[in-house]
Amino acid sequence: MPGPHYTHPIATPIAAAEYRARRDRLLGHPETTDVDGFVWWGNHRVFYLCGFAFAPTERPIALLMRRGGETVLFVPRLEVEHAEAYANVDRVVAYPEYPDVTHPMTHLTKLLRELGLTSAFGGDGDGAPRVMGYRGPKLSEASGASFVALDDVLEATMQVKSPAEIALIRESAYWAGRAHRLLQDATSVGRTETEVEMEAGAGATAELLAAYRGAYRALSWGGSGPFATYRGQIGAHSALPHSLNVNAVFAAGDTLVTGASCPMFGYWSELERTMFIGDPSVEQGIYFGHMLALQDLAIDACRAGRTCSSVDGAVRDYFAEHDLGDAWRHHTGHNVGIRYHEGPFLDVGDDTVMESGMLFTVEPGLYVPGLGGFRHSDTIVVTDDEPEFLTDYPRDLDRLVLDAA
Amino acid sequence: MPGPHYTHPIATPIAAAEYRARRDRLLGHPETTDVDGFVWWGNHRVFYLCGFAFAPTERPIALLMRRGGETVLFVPRLEVEHAEAYANVDRVVAYPEYPDVTHPMTHLTKLLRELGLTSAFGGDGDGAPRVMGYRGPKLSEASGASFVALDDVLEATMQVKSPAEIALIRESAYWAGRAHRLLQDATSVGRTETEVEMEAGAGATAELLAAYRGAYRALSWGGSGPFATYRGQIGAHSALPHSLNVNAVFAAGDTLVTGASCPMFGYWSELERTMFIGDPSVEQGIYFGHMLALQDLAIDACRAGRTCSSVDGAVRDYFAEHDLGDAWRHHTGHNVGIRYHEGPFLDVGDDTVMESGMLFTVEPGLYVPGLGGFRHSDTIVVTDDEPEFLTDYPRDLDRLVLDAA
Repeated sequence: MPGPHYTHPIATPIAAAEYRARRDRLLGHPETTDVDGFVWWGNHRVFYLCGFAFAPTERPIALLMRRGGETVLFVPRLEVEHAEAYANVDRVVAYPEYPDVTHPMTHLTKLLRELGLTSAFGGDGDGAPRVMGYRGPKLSEASGASFVALDDVLEATMQVKSPAEIALIRESAYWAGRAHRLLQDATSVGRTETEVEMEAGAGATAELLAAYRGAYRALSWGGSGPFATYRGQIGAHSALPHSLNVNAVFAAGDTLVTGASCPMFGYWSELERTMFIGDPSVEQGIYFGHMLALQDLAIDACRAGRTCSSVDGAVRDYFAEHDLGDAWRHHTGHNVGIRYHEGPFLDVGDDTVMESGMLFTVEPGLYVPGLGGFRHSDTIVVTDDEPEFLTDYPRDLDRLVLDAA
Repeated sequence: MPGPHYTHPIATPIAAAEYRARRDRLLGHPETTDVDGFVWWGNHRVFYLCGFAFAPTERPIALLMRRGGETVLFVPRLEVEHAEAYANVDRVVAYPEYPDVTHPMTHLTKLLRELGLTSAFGGDGDGAPRVMGYRGPKLSEASGASFVALDDVLEATMQVKSPAEIALIRESAYWAGRAHRLLQDATSVGRTETEVEMEAGAGATAELLAAYRGAYRALSWGGSGPFATYRGQIGAHSALPHSLNVNAVFAAGDTLVTGASCPMFGYWSELERTMFIGDPSVEQGIYFGHMLALQDLAIDACRAGRTCSSVDGAVRDYFAEHDLGDAWRHHTGHNVGIRYHEGPFLDVGDDTVMESGMLFTVEPGLYVPGLGGFRHSDTIVVTDDEPEFLTDYPRDLDRLVLDAA
C-alpha cells in the first residue's frame, strides 16, 4: 500500500502529441530552413523527440525526420521489437548488426535517399558517436548530403519546460524527498555510507512501486526508482564536491552532503542537503549560515527577464564581501530535465535571459579542506512572479542535525 | 565477516607504474611520432591513462601528455583536491568554472603553450565533448596547434589486457556470481523484478564490504558494488534483448534472462544466464539447447591466431544450418574492460586476429516473440591454449530451473 505519505495522483509519461509538437517546433524553426530534415544520434536527443529510451552501445541508433514526411527510427536488429513498442515514430527500420559485413552507415545512406534527405541534413553529429568502440565514416561522406550542425537549435528549444515536463520533475522531486528522509533517518554513528544508501533507496522504491501499481517507468539511464546518496561527501571528504562513494563510516562531528533524485518517465530533479552528526561546531555553523544566506539570495534572484549571469554575479559578490573566496568552487546552478545537468547555467558567463518555465538547481557551495563541504540544492521553476520550489524538504539547521549518540 | 564464500585475497587497484607504462607505450607508438603530445577528453581515456575517475559534466576535463615532458590534468576548480588525491599525474592545473567570463579553452590554450604542445597534438577530439550542454570552440582553432585524431591508436593499445587488469576482471566476475546466486535464490512467483534485484545487490554488496574492510573502490560510472538484474527480460518481454526495467511480477512458466556484474577499481565483467520458473516447456527446452550449443562452439572458437569474425561466422552458420534465422538478433560478443562493451567484437565484420590476453563476452542469443529470450553470457580470456573462463556460474539447465510453487 502507498502508506500515509503518498496522497496525490500518480504521474503519467509525456503524451504522443507532445513528441509530435516538439518535432514540429524543430522542423518549423527559422534556423532550420536550409536542411531537408534531421538525423539525431544522442540518446537524450532521440528520447526528447520520440520517447524511445535505449542503452547506447557500439550499435548506432538514429532518429530521422523529414520536413513534411515521415519520422523514422533506425536501429540494429536487436532493438526492433523494443523500438516498435516504445518509440513515437511512423516507422522503425533495422540494420543487421555492427560492424557486420555491410557497415550500418551504408544501410543508413540508402534510407536517407529513400526519405529524400539527399541535399542537406541537420543534427547533432556528422556520423554516429564513438560509443564503446564504434568506428565509422562521416555520414556526409558516406551519403553525399551535407551536414549542418543544428544541435544548438534543439538545445535551445529544450530549455523552457512544458507543464507536462514540470509535472514529471515535481513528482521526481517528491520521491527524491522520500528517499532523502529515509537516508537522514537511517544515518547514525558507526553505520556505513553504502548500507544507509541502500536502505534509503530500497525503502523509497518500495513505496513508489506500491503507489504506482505497475505504472511506473524510469525511462532513464541512471537506474530505476528513487535514491539518496552521499557520494563520499562525509566528514572532511565532503570538501570534495564531485566525489564518488568511498564507503565511509559515519562519526560524530561529521559534516554530511547528500544528493537525492528519482528518474520519472525520463525526467530528473535534484535535491541536496548539508547535515551534521551532532551539534555543529562554531566553524561548521558559520559556513552553514553563509551557505543558507547564499541559497536564499540566489533563489530570490531567479526571475523572468533577468539574466542567468546576474544570479551567479550576486552569489560571487557575497563571497567577495564576506572574504570567502578560498571556499568557492563552482557556479550557482544549472537547468535540469532529461539530463541531470543542462544549459542554461547560473554562471557569470551565461547571459541567457531567464523565462517562465525554465528550471534551475540552486546550489551555491562552500568547501573548507579539513572541515567539509556546505551545499543545499533545490530545484526551482522560474514563474511570472516568485520562483517556485519543486523540491520540498527542510532547509533549516535544526531539522538537519542528526543524533550523535 | 566475509563468510564462508570468500576465501581468496582481495584485489588491489592498478599500480602507478602501470599507468606510466601505458602513457609511455602511447608516446612511443610509431603512429604518434608526428605530434608533440596528447590531449585526452573522454572519461574512460583519462581513467585508463592516469586512474582518475570523474563524473563528466558541462565542465571539461583533459589529460595532457608531452613527449619527454610532464603529464598534466586540466580540471575545473571544484575537482582540484579530488584530482590531486587520485590522479597519477605530475601536476593538476585548474580553471575557475564553465562557462565563466573566460572560457576554459582560453585557459587550456595557455597551458598548451606552457607545455610546448604548440605544433600538433593528438587525442580523441578537437575540443571538449558536448556533455550536458557544454559548448566551445575547436581546440585547434583556439590554440593554433593542429589536431591529429589518434583515438584508434589508444583503442588498439587497450585491447590486450595486462595481468593486473585480468585479475580485476576475474574479481569482478566473482562478485557478479555472488549477486547472481542471490538473485536466483530470491526470485519466486509473485515477487517483483525490482525487489528481487535490490535484495541481490544489497546482499552481495554487504558481503563485499565485509571482505574488503574499507579497501574497495568501484572507480566507475555504473554504481558501486555487485548487482544482478533482469532489465525487464522476464516472460515474453525477455525477447527484447536490450530492454529496461519494467518492474514485472514473476509468474510460473516465465523465461528469464539476467545480467550481473561488479565494478572493481574501474573494471567490469559480464555474466548473464537464461533461467525458467518451473520446468521449461518443450519449446523453451529446444531453444535453451540451441543457445547452449551455440555458446559452447563460440567459446571453443576463441583461440589466439584466429579472427574475431571466424567465431561469429561459426555461430551464424549454426543459425543457418538449424533454420534459426528468425531468432537471430545480434553478434556473438565483445571485449570488456573499463567499458562494459569495447572492441574488438566477435562479429562477422571484425577481422581482428585474437591474441592471448584479449577478453570476450561470449553470448550468442535467440529471441522468440511471445516465448522469450535465450542467452548466457560468460567472460573469457584468450590464452595460448584453451580459452579460460573468468566467470564461474552453472550453465546447465538443471541448475537454472526455479521452483514454480
